[in-house]
Amino acid sequence: MLQAPVEGSFVMSEFVSGRHFLNTPGPTNLPERVVQAMSRHTINHRGPEFGAVGREAVSRLKTVFNTQGTIGIFPSSGTGAWESALVNVLAPGDRVLISRTGQFSHLWEQMATRFGLDVIALDTDWRRGADATAMGDVLAEDREHRIKAVLVVHSETSTSCMTDIAAVRAAMNRASHPALLMVDAISSLACAPYEHDAWGVDVTVAGSQKGLMVPPGLSFLAISDKALAAARAGGASRRSYWDWEPLVKSNQTGFFPYTPAITLLYGLNEAIAMLTEEGLPNVFARHDRYAQATRIAAQAWGLELQCADPAAYAPGVTAIRVPDGHSADKLRGVILDRFDMSLGNGLGRIEDKVFRIGHMGDLGVLSLTGALTGVEMGLRAAGIPHKEGGVQAAMRFLAGAN
Amino acid sequence: MLQAPVEGSFVMSEFVSGRHFLNTPGPTNLPERVVQAMSRHTINHRGPEFGAVGREAVSRLKTVFNTQGTIGIFPSSGTGAWESALVNVLAPGDRVLISRTGQFSHLWEQMATRFGLDVIALDTDWRRGADATAMGDVLAEDREHRIKAVLVVHSETSTSCMTDIAAVRAAMNRASHPALLMVDAISSLACAPYEHDAWGVDVTVAGSQKGLMVPPGLSFLAISDKALAAARAGGASRRSYWDWEPLVKSNQTGFFPYTPAITLLYGLNEAIAMLTEEGLPNVFARHDRYAQATRIAAQAWGLELQCADPAAYAPGVTAIRVPDGHSADKLRGVILDRFDMSLGNGLGRIEDKVFRIGHMGDLGVLSLTGALTGVEMGLRAAGIPHKEGGVQAAMRFLAGAN
Amino acid sequence: MLQAPVEGSFVMSEFVSGRHFLNTPGPTNLPERVVQAMSRHTINHRGPEFGAVGREAVSRLKTVFNTQGTIGIFPSSGTGAWESALVNVLAPGDRVLISRTGQFSHLWEQMATRFGLDVIALDTDWRRGADATAMGDVLAEDREHRIKAVLVVHSETSTSCMTDIAAVRAAMNRASHPALLMVDAISSLACAPYEHDAWGVDVTVAGSQKGLMVPPGLSFLAISDKALAAARAGGASRRSYWDWEPLVKSNQTGFFPYTPAITLLYGLNEAIAMLTEEGLPNVFARHDRYAQATRIAAQAWGLELQCADPAAYAPGVTAIRVPDGHSADKLRGVILDRFDMSLGNGLGRIEDKVFRIGHMGDLGVLSLTGALTGVEMGLRAAGIPHKEGGVQAAMRFLAGAN
Amino acid sequence: MLQAPVEGSFVMSEFVSGRHFLNTPGPTNLPERVVQAMSRHTINHRGPEFGAVGREAVSRLKTVFNTQGTIGIFPSSGTGAWESALVNVLAPGDRVLISRTGQFSHLWEQMATRFGLDVIALDTDWRRGADATAMGDVLAEDREHRIKAVLVVHSETSTSCMTDIAAVRAAMNRASHPALLMVDAISSLACAPYEHDAWGVDVTVAGSQKGLMVPPGLSFLAISDKALAAARAGGASRRSYWDWEPLVKSNQTGFFPYTPAITLLYGLNEAIAMLTEEGLPNVFARHDRYAQATRIAAQAWGLELQCADPAAYAPGVTAIRVPDGHSADKLRGVILDRFDMSLGNGLGRIEDKVFRIGHMGDLGVLSLTGALTGVEMGLRAAGIPHKEGGVQAAMRFLAGAN
Repeated sequence: MLQAPVEGSFVMSEFVSGRHFLNTPGPTNLPERVVQAMSRHTINHRGPEFGAVGREAVSRLKTVFNTQGTIGIFPSSGTGAWESALVNVLAPGDRVLISRTGQFSHLWEQMATRFGLDVIALDTDWRRGADATAMGDVLAEDREHRIKAVLVVHSETSTSCMTDIAAVRAAMNRASHPALLMVDAISSLACAPYEHDAWGVDVTVAGSQKGLMVPPGLSFLAISDKALAAARAGGASRRSYWDWEPLVKSNQTGFFPYTPAITLLYGLNEAIAMLTEEGLPNVFARHDRYAQATRIAAQAWGLELQCADPAAYAPGVTAIRVPDGHSADKLRGVILDRFDMSLGNGLGRIEDKVFRIGHMGDLGVLSLTGALTGVEMGLRAAGIPHKEGGVQAAMRFLAGAN
Repeated sequence: MLQAPVEGSFVMSEFVSGRHFLNTPGPTNLPERVVQAMSRHTINHRGPEFGAVGREAVSRLKTVFNTQGTIGIFPSSGTGAWESALVNVLAPGDRVLISRTGQFSHLWEQMATRFGLDVIALDTDWRRGADATAMGDVLAEDREHRIKAVLVVHSETSTSCMTDIAAVRAAMNRASHPALLMVDAISSLACAPYEHDAWGVDVTVAGSQKGLMVPPGLSFLAISDKALAAARAGGASRRSYWDWEPLVKSNQTGFFPYTPAITLLYGLNEAIAMLTEEGLPNVFARHDRYAQATRIAAQAWGLELQCADPAAYAPGVTAIRVPDGHSADKLRGVILDRFDMSLGNGLGRIEDKVFRIGHMGDLGVLSLTGALTGVEMGLRAAGIPHKEGGVQAAMRFLAGAN
Repeated sequence: MLQAPVEGSFVMSEFVSGRHFLNTPGPTNLPERVVQAMSRHTINHRGPEFGAVGREAVSRLKTVFNTQGTIGIFPSSGTGAWESALVNVLAPGDRVLISRTGQFSHLWEQMATRFGLDVIALDTDWRRGADATAMGDVLAEDREHRIKAVLVVHSETSTSCMTDIAAVRAAMNRASHPALLMVDAISSLACAPYEHDAWGVDVTVAGSQKGLMVPPGLSFLAISDKALAAARAGGASRRSYWDWEPLVKSNQTGFFPYTPAITLLYGLNEAIAMLTEEGLPNVFARHDRYAQATRIAAQAWGLELQCADPAAYAPGVTAIRVPDGHSADKLRGVILDRFDMSLGNGLGRIEDKVFRIGHMGDLGVLSLTGALTGVEMGLRAAGIPHKEGGVQAAMRFLAGAN
Repeated sequence: MLQAPVEGSFVMSEFVSGRHFLNTPGPTNLPERVVQAMSRHTINHRGPEFGAVGREAVSRLKTVFNTQGTIGIFPSSGTGAWESALVNVLAPGDRVLISRTGQFSHLWEQMATRFGLDVIALDTDWRRGADATAMGDVLAEDREHRIKAVLVVHSETSTSCMTDIAAVRAAMNRASHPALLMVDAISSLACAPYEHDAWGVDVTVAGSQKGLMVPPGLSFLAISDKALAAARAGGASRRSYWDWEPLVKSNQTGFFPYTPAITLLYGLNEAIAMLTEEGLPNVFARHDRYAQATRIAAQAWGLELQCADPAAYAPGVTAIRVPDGHSADKLRGVILDRFDMSLGNGLGRIEDKVFRIGHMGDLGVLSLTGALTGVEMGLRAAGIPHKEGGVQAAMRFLAGAN
């Protein structure tokens, strides 16, 4: 994403045995089957064998988005899909409504501004999801329907707070507002239930490297017929790479209007096959259980969650605050150096104040508890005030509930 | 790229033993070492280990482009790099000069038009490179310097004709014209000598899946200081994903302003390491030898090359015309069905009239001659009028010259 | 196997691009699917997941051997399976009959001698298979049935001559001789039809690295009930590692009395799955076609085949004689240096007089013709007297017959 | 090894997300670099490229065994190396002395008996290493030097007790006894210091799948000049596959008298390269730390260690007793089903009484603590009487000492 990288102040100077614990909220651990599936040679992207690969990818993505609409697959990071969502239906000067729920909604807003959009932003304290009622109020007042799109982040990866998309849609409906609903589901897709069609979302944006368990390099869109029609109606931004029009044909033929990222598509098809084998409801239940165990540990440590609204807890990542006067980045550095685990850092206004434990994607229960031992040992080694017993509490929960 | 895919009319219905012969002009065969390098788990793209990966990629790419300038790496297909080249320095209404040397210059021109640029195009018969003198004449007449950029495709993959970039730059210099020189080196980089700095190129565009021997999914830019300054000066198109400004920092830190395509970068670093081990002059000589052997075979078959100018023969791909009244696509279908080899198809105005043998990237001499046996057997099996002896002639050449 | 390795007199000193042409008669090219299948972590070889892997391996091997008997799988080279065949049913002093058809029957004979067996050997000129009639005559004269076993090599990899196993069994039957029939099918299994049960073979020996398309490291046995009973009856050699008794249980449970070579078993299961998908009759027809094309090329080059009996041509390998006064090893050295292809060398009494082209396992038609171009160019580069046109002749055959 | 496998009574019936915790004492986790190194195609095992692979393997193994002697590499399980040790220097009727320290010394003894050796066995309670003094007493009484070899297991994988090899050698020296000293270092090599030459060991036996971090399928021998001379002197068992004589040449040329298990050798070279990068002293210290943490956890749980001698604790595996009346196998079943972790089972006379936690090979600290959480949750879920706090105690130790 767009924020500045952490400076390279901590370096692993020694040989480290064993598997790294990758507990960032993306990229996530690659299942062995996905690594195997990608260990193939490339093929002619205009030949019949590729067409089958492409059609399978489109078809499988529909089951994850829960849509009968149009699927877009781009060789790009998730930010590319943000851009595609904006430039196909919005023109400079168009008004959009966004809720500032964290760093990623902030960055999406910045992008909108760069494309000349007129952004109305509703602030939050970054400790809860978007306020659907407040959004509805703004829409209700917009009697001229100057607002062309509503932008929401489903799971704010920076704060680990979810926004209730169905509630946002309901608020839009109550206001009888025709704006398009655009949702960033980058860190929620395949971690939490998602209903592109049933929730009435017009454009959903996602990426390969989170719940979908594929390396970064692919972004995805689900596009409603209404959004597609708006793109076709003209009057939006100049575009070429991100244009939706060729997607309609791609959805039918499996061929793409550019050279597709073949090996990543191999991985994508295998990863969604795995999700299907596990069953998406089981996948979601597993994420919930891990998230709950993580919160139980945090509570036992006496640390505060960044998300202040229990109804908004994210299933794939948990942001935890360090006590005032202490550095979350120093803690992460100690944990990386001593215990070979990567955690997510605090972003934007909560930089150095939180650390984020990713528990999304392909993750077994002992990899989760192992990660929690790394946090508890790290708190001790870094001298962060806390109570022992977080792992113990999580184990009690998991040994009962698993 | 942007042209329509071939319809799926021929299907491989039976089990095929052995390794597919991938002789399209990209994607090319992946070296085993590159497949191995990518068979790794992802890492935290904000952690210190990744920084080293990123810095290595930037540094290695500089040696391939022969530049001290700024390197851009995007998770995208090569068409994304085209777009990045345009939107950073050009605004709607800006005039650009392009030579129509084949399908890919045609598509780049189309993209320029979509972004509102005022395109001056010089036609060719698609059987030679751009006419540097003619381009110079247009520039000389542009006394008001309304032309902001000159766009050239170094190796026209659709026709297998090269354009002499140094000659284009010389013509620009003779006209004392300040336009930026932008070059598509997608299918020439790492196949033929390329001198971004020495030739005075301002923006070079490339992709991962050709001479660089990496799966598709990454595009690259080399950017001169002059181009970078133009981008910073403002007045160009609205942009976010393709923006150059963050690249300057990426070049120093190895971190990216988006989630990078980590596994493809692993592959890139290994691939360029291999090119360095072989030695770029040896790589180029190898490509020349394979191209020459291919042309010798075509001549012996009595078939005509699409490229009519011997000075412009491409080192990485050879487009061969089938006799009038015969279908190149039918020939390719027979070759795929019977001999499990993929060849490139004719694009645009030469659709069905040529087939293209890719001989770029990681390719041994017996893989080349094996491919030529596939063509010769295919010509026979498909009933295309030809003389026997193409493989025989190529073998004589290679057994002497290899 | 047991012969001395070739001295390291030719060294590839330079970087070589592209895929090596591995045209030895084993190890053979690994299919990509087999490499993928082996790119897995190991598992607990006493846990339930492994049992399924083991049972699948036993079951799949039965289909390849065409047997309902007992299957043995050993972590060892093929020579280990030779030893297992001998020590389970034969004691020092026991008499065995063997036909000296080439280097591998020679080595098996040497092994028998080391274990104190009393070997009766029938010589051949190494240019044909075993003479079943002559073997029958010896057996008929052995009225006291002192001969306990008859040892035959199905496909003599060193000479590319086959022995007709059914004919040997018929000769044994005509002599009403109770000896056990032991067959080395190391380089014939999965290349030519094999009928362990129907042919009345008692012990068949095989290895992983030939027609079975798996890396070396596994050997296999098919054991008739008669042979198993003989082993159980006692009176044979002391043994532990090679003992058959635990195999009976392994065949049922899938677990092994030692730590099995797990990753190679993953590869084995995938490889036989591929053979099944292709269909064994198709596999055999493919090998026949490639062998015929190779012989057509040799004939056109004016070179003599080592196998002098057309009824005995091997489907997986073709040994070709160089003209007197020329060195086959020098030719192979030139081919390796110049064209990056490995061919089999002459062994034992035909050292330096023949080179062997392996065309077994996972091999596409263009890989075969590519290999033939390497031989033809090598003959030219090495100055071996020959006629041009071998590849041309093979192409005519394959373009018609493929 | 030779004991019966566990019956398949517990089956993982559901999709399991994430990486399996493989905490058996072999096979161990494969480092990603080793998996990558093995994901290569095979090569001609008689060509110059292979010679370099073979010489590297021999050379690297010498550094692990700490020997200048002869190295043997066999495609086989570790039991094959046991057999090779016996048959090269011992003949039926020869007397050997062995200490019964656990299941693996028991199985080696059984093998010796099968080869007709006259075994003198010293019993232990399977809760400590061999009694060097008692062995010395037996040797001192053997004035006719009828004992030809002393057999000791360095790390008894079944009991997690070490035997002090230097002490055994000292006892032999005190008795001035000329017997050969043979050591099974299968589960100690690369986990604990090993000094083949300095300790005066004559034959050391090892395998690929434990501390050496390679899949099963290779066994290794280190052979002293004295043992090699004894093998050459004749008078030992009949042998072929396991014969040492060709090894001498293999050590020089890198070529083998059989088809070597090429892909496993690729893995071996990479694995030992990793051990060298980490530094063997660091590797040993890491194993010690993990073993100590595991014992601390067991103590906190109130469970008894199988090894009753603190001086004999093994660094690579810890066998833990369940309270009387409880089933260790049921516990392991619960842990496999609920927490996707494989533990070692109790073997032979301690079947169902102990479970064994493997902590050898490529293992990070969080993988160890993760495994300990699996045990603690498993104890709870299976209803095994224990105290909470094992993980907590281990974390305190590791956060301080790591």
